[in-house]
Amino acid sequence: MEEILDLKFQNLKVIQDPEGYCFTSDSVLLANYVKSKASDTVVEFCAGSGVVSILLSKKQKMEKIFAFEIQKRLFDMFQKSIKLNGLEEKITAVNDRLENAVEYLSQEGADVVLCNPPYHEGGDQSDKKEVAIATHEVETNLESIVKSANKVLKFGGKFYMVHRVDRLVDVLCTMRKYKIEPKKINIIYPKIQAEPVVFLVTAIKGGKKGLRMSKVNFAEDFNKSCQLFD
Amino acid sequence: MEEILDLKFQNLKVIQDPEGYCFTSDSVLLANYVKSKASDTVVEFCAGSGVVSILLSKKQKMEKIFAFEIQKRLFDMFQKSIKLNGLEEKITAVNDRLENAVEYLSQEGADVVLCNPPYHEGGDQSDKKEVAIATHEVETNLESIVKSANKVLKFGGKFYMVHRVDRLVDVLCTMRKYKIEPKKINIIYPKIQAEPVVFLVTAIKGGKKGLRMSKVNFAEDFNKSCQLFD
Repeated sequence: MEEILDLKFQNLKVIQDPEGYCFTSDSVLLANYVKSKASDTVVEFCAGSGVVSILLSKKQKMEKIFAFEIQKRLFDMFQKSIKLNGLEEKITAVNDRLENAVEYLSQEGADVVLCNPPYHEGGDQSDKKEVAIATHEVETNLESIVKSANKVLKFGGKFYMVHRVDRLVDVLCTMRKYKIEPKKINIIYPKIQAEPVVFLVTAIKGGKKGLRMSKVNFAEDFNKSCQLFD
Repeated sequence: MEEILDLKFQNLKVIQDPEGYCFTSDSVLLANYVKSKASDTVVEFCAGSGVVSILLSKKQKMEKIFAFEIQKRLFDMFQKSIKLNGLEEKITAVNDRLENAVEYLSQEGADVVLCNPPYHEGGDQSDKKEVAIATHEVETNLESIVKSANKVLKFGGKFYMVHRVDRLVDVLCTMRKYKIEPKKINIIYPKIQAEPVVFLVTAIKGGKKGLRMSKVNFAEDFNKSCQLFD
């Protein structure tokens, strides 16, 4: 049962099924974290129903977004959302594996890759296959994502990712393995007296070693333009 | 010109030369971070003038500390500090390379290894050789330290380290390479609106993957029992 959700930002809307996989506040964090120029070629991996690309097309005025989603039903809803928002000229949704992403780009390399990936390597999965694939490493995994990002990014291009703190070591070591050097981490604290669960990372293909970490960030620092999860 | 510094904790004192290398607040952070039992065999790498081991011998009541320092003059001052504090039964200072550490342990493996290492791979060095060796990777480096820690630790033993945020990726990837899995990170924020410079990490030899990050920590959270750097 598909529903239209108002993103409460520039009249943007996303179609999703409340009974299936629904995007979380982490997608909004990522959309508000990414920085790019309108002329950049941007690639989103694991796009789901497309909320990050849809927000970015207006927030950062990006003109050329290629967004990959392997699940056909999520991809179909994403296609409908693109039409509903009149973003056909800006966003190209692709229903293919990340490993093939480079074949869809019209130029040598992407300026930006971003991803809100399936977080979990193992552990309990949802009985709903759509949710399990979106949240667990079933159809893809961290290594494939970073390896594919390396393939599509141009030298000096940026990779933005949101992920869970419990996998920080995996994320940083995998990025370094594929020559995408982590440059900045923003830990997202739920509140001052709580341990953080997610972080945002900016990495640069071929970047020099040397990490910065942001001052203390709370989720609301990134949600000012989209109040869905207050 | 050697001077006796009062640590303002249980009447402990450290001898150092204000014209040579002097310990910093990061040593106090580390001493206040480490947790262990009195019966543990503890090894300190890069001990300098010995302030961390001296504090630990009283704070955590550790009975068996082997502390390694390669610089003869710092080692000599450390020896004098051990006598000055009457800690000859608890702390054994050793003037040898970390690679040889395992030869000095009377039992199979250490329960705890801790280290406040030389932080910098490159960049400007002090004209004073003693300071340069203590702050830059001249006589040892991160890889040697972690590799040596793996050699002396028993399976399940803990490795505690303080290091700079700009080398977080190096630290985490090197630990994983040598099967010492990072389990907990405490980022030290100078204040809420400032980017952090140093972090503390707890890792476990043979530990399972899965990192936790502490709630927001400020330096003073770790300095309550030693007010030297307020």
